[in-house]
Amino acid sequence: MQLNELETPALILDRLAMDRNIARLRDRLAGFDVALRPHVKTNKSADVARRIGAPGSPITVSTLKEAEYFFEHGWADILYAVGIAANKFAHVADLVQRGARMTVVLDNVETARALAAFCRSTELTIPVLIEIDTDGHRSGVPPEAPLLLEIAAQLGKSEAAGGAWLSGVMTHAGDSYNCPSTADIEKVAELERAGAVRAAQRLRAADYPAPVVSVGSTPTAHFARSFDGVTEVRAGVYVFFDLVMHGLGVCEQSDIALSVLCSVIGHQQEKGWIITDGGWMAMSRDRGTSGQKVDQGYGVVCDQAGIPLPGLIMQQANQEHGIIVHRDDTSLTPMLPVGTLLRILPNHACSTAAQHDGYHVVAGSSQIEAYWPRISGW
Amino acid sequence: MQLNELETPALILDRLAMDRNIARLRDRLAGFDVALRPHVKTNKSADVARRIGAPGSPITVSTLKEAEYFFEHGWADILYAVGIAANKFAHVADLVQRGARMTVVLDNVETARALAAFCRSTELTIPVLIEIDTDGHRSGVPPEAPLLLEIAAQLGKSEAAGGAWLSGVMTHAGDSYNCPSTADIEKVAELERAGAVRAAQRLRAADYPAPVVSVGSTPTAHFARSFDGVTEVRAGVYVFFDLVMHGLGVCEQSDIALSVLCSVIGHQQEKGWIITDGGWMAMSRDRGTSGQKVDQGYGVVCDQAGIPLPGLIMQQANQEHGIIVHRDDTSLTPMLPVGTLLRILPNHACSTAAQHDGYHVVAGSSQIEAYWPRISGW
Repeated sequence: MQLNELETPALILDRLAMDRNIARLRDRLAGFDVALRPHVKTNKSADVARRIGAPGSPITVSTLKEAEYFFEHGWADILYAVGIAANKFAHVADLVQRGARMTVVLDNVETARALAAFCRSTELTIPVLIEIDTDGHRSGVPPEAPLLLEIAAQLGKSEAAGGAWLSGVMTHAGDSYNCPSTADIEKVAELERAGAVRAAQRLRAADYPAPVVSVGSTPTAHFARSFDGVTEVRAGVYVFFDLVMHGLGVCEQSDIALSVLCSVIGHQQEKGWIITDGGWMAMSRDRGTSGQKVDQGYGVVCDQAGIPLPGLIMQQANQEHGIIVHRDDTSLTPMLPVGTLLRILPNHACSTAAQHDGYHVVAGSSQIEAYWPRISGW
Repeated sequence: MQLNELETPALILDRLAMDRNIARLRDRLAGFDVALRPHVKTNKSADVARRIGAPGSPITVSTLKEAEYFFEHGWADILYAVGIAANKFAHVADLVQRGARMTVVLDNVETARALAAFCRSTELTIPVLIEIDTDGHRSGVPPEAPLLLEIAAQLGKSEAAGGAWLSGVMTHAGDSYNCPSTADIEKVAELERAGAVRAAQRLRAADYPAPVVSVGSTPTAHFARSFDGVTEVRAGVYVFFDLVMHGLGVCEQSDIALSVLCSVIGHQQEKGWIITDGGWMAMSRDRGTSGQKVDQGYGVVCDQAGIPLPGLIMQQANQEHGIIVHRDDTSLTPMLPVGTLLRILPNHACSTAAQHDGYHVVAGSSQIEAYWPRISGW
């Protein structure tokens, strides 16, 4: 099947770009003594994940539905990287009883106490990472906070003790998404590393072995100068990249492996508008570049082969309509004929991919070599 | 099952509010000589659609996947309200051959010519509406444009002639979403009505019967003073309502039937942040109230029973994390205990519902009376 035989809109994955992106981070981390635990929340597809690492390799998930799905596809070492809520304990227990090695995350005494009680009553052994806040952007305990040891006090010291045991610490430098330069990403990466390592040192000084120090984000994974003391790196969007990552200087536009194929369905010639059948349902409502130096609207417009058309962005979105204009001057918008196929590069790969049931895979031509389904929901 | 037995996040539908919303528009339109052709793009669920009208009643869809699904659930009179692209002709033909009455929309000569040729070669009869632009917000032909008759010239004059035949006109007053007052919505509604009727009159003067005059949007359907000359009204979001509709003055906040149930999973007490497991994946990235008088962030925060908690909004979103604060002063944010269940009212029902696989239905209590699946994709 060829691209021009698809009904539009459709999600297109350029496997060659993806494979380059996967190799880039793998090669970079090979220079450090650190493991990669890729975050599959971006791709949610066993077919994509197989190209990152064989089933059995460690992964990070953002939902228990992902944990379930990847476990059923052969991945067993799974970090669920969102602070666990008590209403998910039974689901985690079910996965553990079926043979998954589930690691969970928390950042408060109440949850640690509740999980410890749950593990006692169910006789389950579950490793726990305490989330550390290294940049003030979201959850977690500051590395120097007394709270760190108060949480630890609720948990077992090692796997041998059974129950909910303190496996180590994790942090996510979400602030790296707001860096004005890659030099700033380096600095955020060092804060991420140093904060996580410092928290682990405090736990070890209190007689918790805390073997795991897990850090990560796509920007910091690519620009950190040191992973000293870190045991594993998490990253997700690096597999596809997107316009936000391009705006941060983490990738070239040509590295973006994901795009949405749409058709020109009309024009408003006097306004310089091209209308397509790719709206926000196909792109998502993500406007992640709106706060960056270059606002890319809802996405950069490429031809059917994936080559950017100079100056064209998707400026507006209705549910199933996109409006494409020349970014500088709508009078320069070329009135591309009705039926023209376009590919729109997304602001944010995680949110755009989530709007689709699967990937139409291409590799350097208009031939579709595969369809890779993906999951959604919780 | 009770709300507190669900894993969070989960989409909650208040059936009592929904039934009131459905009755409100039905009762309003009963005072006019006009049919309702509800847009199912908001709900994408046969269970919801059954409460609007029996299978067999006319509906509007935004994708051919919706057409397929609702046809298989008993609805046969289907308007696909997005300008048709040639790569969808075969799919439409398949539905028609299986017994659906599919009406399609277009606004240019090229598509009309291509569809007419397709219908000749396949010996299919397909009714066509020309899209009219009555407010400059998106697609369509201005009511007075010569183009209107150029498009018509490509199409058959009546169903008896067979092929692609001109069934009438349709318009959508999307500009009604930007009105500062309901008085302005009334004015936009009159422009919508008058423009569509004027276009139909021009076609009739050229000897096209053009029996259908289809208008609609949730705001104009509720505030139009006249539907003279209109044969059918389309509206979709009125079934659920949302914060954008509330901001426009179209509904009360208590009319919003959709919410996302999430759990408090932590705090950043010094910042006045409550962290939940409901992020943008559960709410969507829609920030539709950001341009309104009151910016509601990612949503208004309610307790488990759906009662708004004074001043609390979901201010920030990560993929699976929400950050809740007091809108005026984060020092006023109450540190709701870990495990507290909250319900977040969405900016935009269409985009939030699209993030979920189905609705957990409640009716005036915490008892879940049903799970109604919904579809996604194209």
